[in-house]
Amino acid sequence: MSEDGLLYFDYAAATPLSDVALRAMRPYFSEKFFNPSSPYAPAIQVHREYEAAKHELAVAIGGKADDIVVTAGATESINLAMTAAGGGHIVTSAIEHHAVLHAARRHDVSIVDVPRSGIVDAQAIRQAIRSDTQLVSIALANNELGTIQPLRDIATVIEAERLARRNRGDKTPLWFHSDASQGVGQIDINVARLGVDLITINAAKCYGPKQVALLWRKPGVALTPLVYGGGQELGLRSGTENVAGTIGFAAALTDASQKRKSESKRLGDLRDLFEQLLVEGNDPLQVTIPGKKRLPGSLHVMIPGVDAERLIFLLETKGVFVATGSACAANSGTRSHVLTAIGLTDAEADGSLRITLGRHSTEAQVRRGAEAIIDAVRSEIERVRK
Amino acid sequence: MSEDGLLYFDYAAATPLSDVALRAMRPYFSEKFFNPSSPYAPAIQVHREYEAAKHELAVAIGGKADDIVVTAGATESINLAMTAAGGGHIVTSAIEHHAVLHAARRHDVSIVDVPRSGIVDAQAIRQAIRSDTQLVSIALANNELGTIQPLRDIATVIEAERLARRNRGDKTPLWFHSDASQGVGQIDINVARLGVDLITINAAKCYGPKQVALLWRKPGVALTPLVYGGGQELGLRSGTENVAGTIGFAAALTDASQKRKSESKRLGDLRDLFEQLLVEGNDPLQVTIPGKKRLPGSLHVMIPGVDAERLIFLLETKGVFVATGSACAANSGTRSHVLTAIGLTDAEADGSLRITLGRHSTEAQVRRGAEAIIDAVRSEIERVRK
Repeated sequence: MSEDGLLYFDYAAATPLSDVALRAMRPYFSEKFFNPSSPYAPAIQVHREYEAAKHELAVAIGGKADDIVVTAGATESINLAMTAAGGGHIVTSAIEHHAVLHAARRHDVSIVDVPRSGIVDAQAIRQAIRSDTQLVSIALANNELGTIQPLRDIATVIEAERLARRNRGDKTPLWFHSDASQGVGQIDINVARLGVDLITINAAKCYGPKQVALLWRKPGVALTPLVYGGGQELGLRSGTENVAGTIGFAAALTDASQKRKSESKRLGDLRDLFEQLLVEGNDPLQVTIPGKKRLPGSLHVMIPGVDAERLIFLLETKGVFVATGSACAANSGTRSHVLTAIGLTDAEADGSLRITLGRHSTEAQVRRGAEAIIDAVRSEIERVRK
Repeated sequence: MSEDGLLYFDYAAATPLSDVALRAMRPYFSEKFFNPSSPYAPAIQVHREYEAAKHELAVAIGGKADDIVVTAGATESINLAMTAAGGGHIVTSAIEHHAVLHAARRHDVSIVDVPRSGIVDAQAIRQAIRSDTQLVSIALANNELGTIQPLRDIATVIEAERLARRNRGDKTPLWFHSDASQGVGQIDINVARLGVDLITINAAKCYGPKQVALLWRKPGVALTPLVYGGGQELGLRSGTENVAGTIGFAAALTDASQKRKSESKRLGDLRDLFEQLLVEGNDPLQVTIPGKKRLPGSLHVMIPGVDAERLIFLLETKGVFVATGSACAANSGTRSHVLTAIGLTDAEADGSLRITLGRHSTEAQVRRGAEAIIDAVRSEIERVRK
C-alpha cells in the first residue's frame, strides 16, 4: 500500500499483497512459468513446488494437503462447499455473505434468524436441522459486524445430530462448513479445534494474491465439481493449477499465522482506541455490537439519522476510506441484509459505518481517522438540521 | 523466460508472462489493491480501470465489453459456454480438449469423428445436428496437432440449420462456441469473421497471466452461472473481480494482436525449418499432418517404434523441452485421445512429439533442438535394435 497519507480502514474488503507473498510468486511469472502437468523436469519441479505450497496451506490450518482444493476465490470455494449437501437440505444464517446465501438458495435451505448480538445461536441451528439436512454453513466471523461465531457450539449440535442419526441407523451425512475468510490472521484457524468439516479461506483477505482461495474438507466429504476438464485437484477443480497464486497464498497464510498473536493484540488495542475516540467525540454515535466477541480489527458503528453513504463521500475527500457494509452490497446500492437481519432500524442501518483495521494501521492513523469521522458526522448533522 | 540455454518447444502448454503484461499488473498488487466494488474514489477508479481492460479485451476480438465474462481460466470459460446448451443436445468433435469433452459429457452430446487430416468436417457437424441441438463446440486450432479448424464452414452449416428452424417456426436456439486458446497471437481472432456466438480465450497461452480467461458471447446467448454470490460480471460469475489478472490479460492480448502478423510469419518460417531439419535427419520420422492448415508455430511428428516418453526424458537431459501431447493428457499417462481419434496406430501415437514454438524461439534454438531430437531418436532406435 502506498504510504502517501491515505487512511485506509477497509481491510475487510481488500488487503494489499504483502512483499513476502509477491517475492514468493515472482519466479513463477517468468522463469518458472511451466505447466505443472508437463512431463519434463523443470515442469515436474514446478508441480512439486505447487504441492509443497498446498502442504504449507494445510499445515497452517491443521489439515492435509490432499484435502485441499485450490479455487479462484472464496465465492467459488463456497459454491463448491455447498455441493457437499448433495440433494439435501442446508441450514445457514441470515447474516451470511451473499456468496453463501445465493449459493445456498440453489438448494432447499433454511435460514435461521440472528439476534441483535450478531451472534448465531447454536440452538437455533439445532432447531433448523431436519432429518434431510446435509450441510450447515456459518461463517467464522461476520464480514460486516466482525462478530465471531460460536463454531464449537454449532459443531457440538451437529455432532449430537450425527449421533442420533447413527443410533437410528440413518446414514444421511451431515457436514459443517465455515467461510473463515474474515478471520485469518486475527483468530486461530485450526480445522480440528474449530470442529468444522469444510472450511473456506481467501488469500485476498490475508495479504495474499487475489483470485485464490482454498476449500479444505475432511476426508469422506463428497463434493461435486463445478467445472470439468483435465482432472486437476483430484478431479474436483479442473484447469491448469494456479501455481504462482497458490505459492503466494501459502507464503501469505504462513506469514499471517506467525504474526497472528502479536497482530491481533495490536489490532485489538487500536480498535479499542478508535472506538473510545469515536464514542467520546460523537454524541449520536453508537457502537453496534460492543464487547469481546468481535474480530480485533473490526469496529461497526451507527449514527442514526446520518446518511452513511454521504459520510463516505465526505470522508474520502479527506483521504479516509471506510465502508458502509460489504463491498458487494455497497455496490448494489441496497440496504445491508446483515443489519436488517439483526433488527437494526432503517435509520440505524443507513447510518452505519464498517471500520476495519489491518497490518498497515497505526495509532497515528487511528487518531487522524477518528478525528475525520467525528468532523464529518458533525458537519452532516448540522447539514441535516438546517 | 530465462535465457540460460534451455530449449523450450512447448509454448502450447504454457507461455511465460510478458514484461508488458507484468508491468501492467504490478500497480494492482499493492498501491491499487482496492476492492473494485468498494464505494470510495480510489476503488471506483480501480473499477474503471478494470472495465477499461475488459473493453480492451473486447476490442482485440471485435466484440463489446458487456458481452465478456472474465473467468479463472479456459476450463471455466468452456464449462460456462456449455451452459448455453440449456437442457439441449451438444455437438462436438473427438479431438477437442478434455475440458470440452468432459464438460460436454455432462449434457446429451454427439461426438463427431475426425479424419486423418485432423480437420473437423463441417458436413459431419451438419449430420450430427439434431432438432434439439443447442450448441456446437469446436476449437479454433487443435491443441496437439495444431490443425486450424474451418470455423467459417461450420458457422455456415449452423446458419443454415437456424434458417431451417425459423422457417418451420421452431424457436430452439443453436449456438456455436469455439475455444480459441491455441490460436491467439498466431491467427486472426475476430468473433464476427470467425462466425462464432461464443469464444473462449486463455491469457496463459498468449504471454498473459495464468488463471485468467474470457468467455465472450453474442448478446442473446443465455448462460447459467457456475457460481453464485455477489453478482459480479452481470451475475454470470460472482466473486471479487480479478483486476490485476484482467489488466495483464488485456495488455498481453493487445500486444499479441499487434505482433501477430510479423510473429506468425516468423514462427511459420522457423517451424518449416524445424520440420525440414527433422525430416532430413531422421529416416523413420514423419510429419503427422504436413501443409498449411496448421498454426505457424506447431509441428507434430511421429517416430513409430520409438517411445516418445523415453525421448522426452532423453531430450530433457540436453535441456530440450517438448511434449508428447497436451500437458493434461501427458500427466495422466494415457494415450492421446486426439491421435487415436484421427486413426494413428498405437505405435504412431506412442512415438509422437508435439513441438510448439513461440516468442522466444530463435533459428539457433531450432537448429540446436532439431539436432538434439535427431540424436535422441537415433540413440533410441539403436537401443531398441539391441
